[in-house]
Amino acid sequence: MMSTERTEIDTRAAMILERCDALGAMSEEQDCLTRRYGTPAMRAVNERVMNWMRAAGMNVHRDAIGNLIARYEADVSDPPTLLLGSHLDTVRDAGKYDGPLGVLVALALVETLHASGARLPFALELYGFCDEEGLRYHTGYLGSRAVAGDLNLNDLNVSDANSIALVEAIRTFGGDPDALATCARRRDDLLGYCEVHIEQGPVLEAHNLPVGVVSAIQGQSRITVGFMGMAGHAGTVPMAMRHDALCAASEFLLEVERLGRATEGLVATVGQLDAYPGASNVIPGQVTLSLDVRHQDDAMREQTCERLESRGREIAQSRGVTMEWHLLGAHHSVPCSTHLRALLAQAIADQNVESYSLPSGAGHDAVPMSLLTDVTMLFVRCAGGISHSPAESVTREDVALALATLQRFVALMADEWAAKRGTP
Amino acid sequence: MMSTERTEIDTRAAMILERCDALGAMSEEQDCLTRRYGTPAMRAVNERVMNWMRAAGMNVHRDAIGNLIARYEADVSDPPTLLLGSHLDTVRDAGKYDGPLGVLVALALVETLHASGARLPFALELYGFCDEEGLRYHTGYLGSRAVAGDLNLNDLNVSDANSIALVEAIRTFGGDPDALATCARRRDDLLGYCEVHIEQGPVLEAHNLPVGVVSAIQGQSRITVGFMGMAGHAGTVPMAMRHDALCAASEFLLEVERLGRATEGLVATVGQLDAYPGASNVIPGQVTLSLDVRHQDDAMREQTCERLESRGREIAQSRGVTMEWHLLGAHHSVPCSTHLRALLAQAIADQNVESYSLPSGAGHDAVPMSLLTDVTMLFVRCAGGISHSPAESVTREDVALALATLQRFVALMADEWAAKRGTP
Repeated sequence: MMSTERTEIDTRAAMILERCDALGAMSEEQDCLTRRYGTPAMRAVNERVMNWMRAAGMNVHRDAIGNLIARYEADVSDPPTLLLGSHLDTVRDAGKYDGPLGVLVALALVETLHASGARLPFALELYGFCDEEGLRYHTGYLGSRAVAGDLNLNDLNVSDANSIALVEAIRTFGGDPDALATCARRRDDLLGYCEVHIEQGPVLEAHNLPVGVVSAIQGQSRITVGFMGMAGHAGTVPMAMRHDALCAASEFLLEVERLGRATEGLVATVGQLDAYPGASNVIPGQVTLSLDVRHQDDAMREQTCERLESRGREIAQSRGVTMEWHLLGAHHSVPCSTHLRALLAQAIADQNVESYSLPSGAGHDAVPMSLLTDVTMLFVRCAGGISHSPAESVTREDVALALATLQRFVALMADEWAAKRGTP
Repeated sequence: MMSTERTEIDTRAAMILERCDALGAMSEEQDCLTRRYGTPAMRAVNERVMNWMRAAGMNVHRDAIGNLIARYEADVSDPPTLLLGSHLDTVRDAGKYDGPLGVLVALALVETLHASGARLPFALELYGFCDEEGLRYHTGYLGSRAVAGDLNLNDLNVSDANSIALVEAIRTFGGDPDALATCARRRDDLLGYCEVHIEQGPVLEAHNLPVGVVSAIQGQSRITVGFMGMAGHAGTVPMAMRHDALCAASEFLLEVERLGRATEGLVATVGQLDAYPGASNVIPGQVTLSLDVRHQDDAMREQTCERLESRGREIAQSRGVTMEWHLLGAHHSVPCSTHLRALLAQAIADQNVESYSLPSGAGHDAVPMSLLTDVTMLFVRCAGGISHSPAESVTREDVALALATLQRFVALMADEWAAKRGTP
């Protein structure tokens, strides 16, 4: 890359960060960043981003649920389309980068093309999804599921904390709840979906790498585990006669940690634990805890859950305690496209950066989009692995590298596509 | 013991249980037994018990705080006095035996003496303490502390949940808050204090024994322990990079259990545990837990606490977590009188029952009474070790044995006292 290109990329990275700042100031709340589906803050962000998209030579519209869609035409007629994007909504008291960064890096890519009048052998369509976090309606991926044709009538039959029905919110947001089927894309003209996102974890930072290729979005099992022992007086029941549910839970919890550490790529977490009756002078008679197990290999995840259930029963039995195991839900792993991953890895290597692959432990719009087309994701290092917090932070250098990588990725796809069409 | 005596004791035991039932029906609440200091239910119980005491040939009065005191005169003038008793108040949703059983067994002893016109070389005074549980004012042992001269002005400066001041409640209860000093007994005319009480633990049941002699009322340390790690996303932070406060707490908790099991006579309990932020998909960044350590040897208890604090710090350090240790309070062990214990043990052996000694893990009126005079306690087996619950239960056979033991104990003291006075 020539130094003028490098300078241009750095300038665009600085602009991306300024835009993240600008969108980060558009909040429902005075003191923190919160942008839920269908709110005035969300409308304002959509307006702002639409203006930037139009200035980049894109045709912009909103679909029936309120996703922004900006199309940058190809140099051929009736071209295939590569989808780019991420989401513009946030969690409560959010950071500025989770979502918007991916939209704005992709926008900067188009701005670069537009500035030089360059066209590709395929169209680019940039999505700004309207609801990924599901904060308002507890409906994760509302925007991308509409695009993937994965919404059903039940999904719509919900109301928010103020009893505003989702269909009403869709209308208020300028959408059309009766036309949601029109959001869904035809799959046969799509080349894939590529999403840039902050990592939301500490792995890239620990490896001193600016970006990484996502291997898969991990599958997840969510389980509630109960241990039922016998409550008793903390002073009068000798240790040898106890059936302490919290001791059983502790032994189980360390087993979760041990197995998690011993299994490559597995994460297993007990995040919630409630001990009853919960008085300092009463031996806990009952404990309920949450168990979250994730792995990019579904068989490995399920096998781990089976082993943990079995170990939990052994621990309980050895203590004269009973165990209950309730699977609350599970979703399978979403592998990223091998082909698109290889192109992204090549694009990173072409920046003279080690091409590193890691799974995503968090969900992304790429999950529903995988129902529609091949997906790939580029993770950007974030400070301390922190996300969903005002402390979210990325560097201009890393954003520049992400932009350069995305540019290169698109160029590699263009070369490949041109070769396929027989154009030298 | 002749069979007519056995029959009489069984009949008196049956009456004790009927009286426990009768008092158990005298409650502040419709659906459960709750009898707090100074309430109409407490006045009603005092009235009922006073009538029984008077019928047993005792002089009865109430002291300035509302304790019942019934005196059965000696066969000599200016005699020393042996104190008997327990408490008549209860916890919320209580059982019928914790407290009243001790008063009613002692009352049955006096009834037996009165029925045959027998007198002892010392007076018996039977206390029905008005507040041991401290449910209303969080003032444990209010009645017996007044008798021991252990109340101070600060103890009186409290109000209940309805903002009724304790001094007002004392007046309503027929007492005199300005005359509380008159509740205190002179120590030099006392032979000791003997209390019968349900065990509130499962040890006698496990040993298949009806009664046991209390060796000491255990000392107790109450500690709050905090573990501060780092919260993080349950999906995105690899196991090896975590500083999970709940895993640290679990390791500590198992160490508490291990040390408790390894130390004869020690009980160590984590009854409360709160993990923050407490979401299923967030690694716990902070844990607060309660630690309760009891032993009848104060040095052993303190040494255990020091070892646990040291182990906690090691566990925290090895995990990149910090630990905080706050001693909330401690009270020392109250040993029962060696001499009175030996007499009680002899009295049990004389019933052809193994004389078994065990510490009390719960507090009793004997704790403040130990400030005044030698104390001893006789524990009665209770089903499942359950107390502070409507499920509290004792058998008529065990109560009969407790009564026979108390009779024999008093007879042994009478023999001893007569020998001391040079009367053959």
